[in-house]
Amino acid sequence: MKIALDAMGGDHAPEATIHGAVWAARDFGLTIQLVGQPEIIEAELAKHQTTNLDLPIIPASEVIDMDEKPSVAVKGKKDSSMVVALKLVKDGTSNAFVSAGNSGGALAAALFGLGRIKGIKRPALSTVFPSASEYGCCVILDVGANTDVRPEYLLQFALMGYHYANQVLHIPNPRVGLLSTGEEENKGSTLIKEVTPMLKESKLNFIGNLEGKDVPSGMADVVVTDGFTGNVYIKGAQGVAWMIQKILEQEIKSRPTAMVGAFLARGAFKALRTKLDYREFGGGPLLGVSGVVVVAHGRSDHYAIRNAIRVARDASENRIVQAIETGLSQTNLNGR
Amino acid sequence: MKIALDAMGGDHAPEATIHGAVWAARDFGLTIQLVGQPEIIEAELAKHQTTNLDLPIIPASEVIDMDEKPSVAVKGKKDSSMVVALKLVKDGTSNAFVSAGNSGGALAAALFGLGRIKGIKRPALSTVFPSASEYGCCVILDVGANTDVRPEYLLQFALMGYHYANQVLHIPNPRVGLLSTGEEENKGSTLIKEVTPMLKESKLNFIGNLEGKDVPSGMADVVVTDGFTGNVYIKGAQGVAWMIQKILEQEIKSRPTAMVGAFLARGAFKALRTKLDYREFGGGPLLGVSGVVVVAHGRSDHYAIRNAIRVARDASENRIVQAIETGLSQTNLNGR
Repeated sequence: MKIALDAMGGDHAPEATIHGAVWAARDFGLTIQLVGQPEIIEAELAKHQTTNLDLPIIPASEVIDMDEKPSVAVKGKKDSSMVVALKLVKDGTSNAFVSAGNSGGALAAALFGLGRIKGIKRPALSTVFPSASEYGCCVILDVGANTDVRPEYLLQFALMGYHYANQVLHIPNPRVGLLSTGEEENKGSTLIKEVTPMLKESKLNFIGNLEGKDVPSGMADVVVTDGFTGNVYIKGAQGVAWMIQKILEQEIKSRPTAMVGAFLARGAFKALRTKLDYREFGGGPLLGVSGVVVVAHGRSDHYAIRNAIRVARDASENRIVQAIETGLSQTNLNGR
Repeated sequence: MKIALDAMGGDHAPEATIHGAVWAARDFGLTIQLVGQPEIIEAELAKHQTTNLDLPIIPASEVIDMDEKPSVAVKGKKDSSMVVALKLVKDGTSNAFVSAGNSGGALAAALFGLGRIKGIKRPALSTVFPSASEYGCCVILDVGANTDVRPEYLLQFALMGYHYANQVLHIPNPRVGLLSTGEEENKGSTLIKEVTPMLKESKLNFIGNLEGKDVPSGMADVVVTDGFTGNVYIKGAQGVAWMIQKILEQEIKSRPTAMVGAFLARGAFKALRTKLDYREFGGGPLLGVSGVVVVAHGRSDHYAIRNAIRVARDASENRIVQAIETGLSQTNLNGR
């Protein structure tokens, strides 16, 4: 198994990317292809113990910056780490691609370099979100690849999320829910009212429409939404989790007895932080392109990079692309 | 000051509504007009000490149920508590209306009974959301009245939210932000890209586009969004807060030392719960109709009802309707 890593991408690259790659190579026994500027990568690698690890450097002279316009950058920078890494996936030299760089750039480069799975109208960025379900998480998609959608896109997102949850997260017959403003079918936007009957008619395990509160409570294993709402939703959840921890910290600090209490309960607080830590989930697979692509958070540290590589390995090992292809051919999702 | 309360509305009516009304009448020295079926209201009132409180009963024989279709119910049930209560506001017998009943019904009854403020295209449901800003909260609108919107509606939501934050919450020159998928103007949906320049050209204190995480962090005092996204957002926040408390509880219970710690820190936990409690905020004002209307959560208990009455009093005392009217006449918000 070979994973192509965008060594230059992310707020903390190349330190975090190289450190994460070394860690992943050791823990998972994978070949991690470090794509980027060789002298920079070599300098970072020199800081680590890499004996017996397979960490080849693949030269790419250009870098797509975090604030560059995706489509322009991808077309203009043919020798960028993203474009070069995706060529490796395209020609079978790599099994998967991981980047913490400009996420719009990664999407554009993936679309441009790999193309869509035949029949898929729009790829969707997915993320694994903690929940109180028996599996401890659910898949939400789209969380940012498509801010404007059509009903048939959402139907395909449902199919892709279903196969990801089933094939990669090993959830049997995942429950698919559509994010809306109420459970009732007469609630929600025009878009929702158009998609609901399409999902009901599909052979997916559609359990109905969800409210925002039903995602953390674990009512569904796959949460289908447009990329605008999904993006606002997951970032809102991060913000709320941050606010709660901040308020609790302030309240504890203002009470000497509570300070002692918090010290005694520190194991529980640590377990909570781990469960909420976006880094545990590593990164979100871009579903619908002809290859495994994992987009990690821009502020990923080495631990997040390590886990994003694990997500890519799991998606590749469990043949997610083939599962979506097969699912698409077996399911009647003509839409309209 | 007289507040018309829908005594029949809400999951816990009439117990919660009457108890909340008694409490509010006592705490705030207000007249609370209890609108609904007299025998039911009298039976509830008999459970409380009401000497010297002004709690007149206004008879209304019908009730709009939680699951009725709003427009049909409002037109069909002319003698429902909602329709009757809004007539009191319309003819000046009441200063404001509060309901925890069918929220779509309350919106429809308010539009039907009071009409829109001249020039306002769509009323918006707002809510006060806890944040880390110096004021401890922000106003989010729309959170559910309009699931499909046009750019000019969002521009007016911004204006209404600005005046509410300024006039009722007493925030000087409130900072207005537009909820999107990134701060950059090239991010977000087509709708967002159309609204952003309109907000920049307006005379409102527009600080730019926000991500979901920027709402709890207190980056803006007024968060403008469509009713679909806003509804999913606030319910998602409730769900995340619930999940965090549940995880922490489980982690604490599995550790004897942490149990002791949590006991010592119980004051801090209680303070956290109070800050996150939706009941503290009471209810969301429906902005843009010609009268003060506060829509409380369907599952409101007596404390939430008491606070919703306080919100209605504040909005009426601070003349929010007039503030929006004046704001609209002074600001160039022609849109397109």
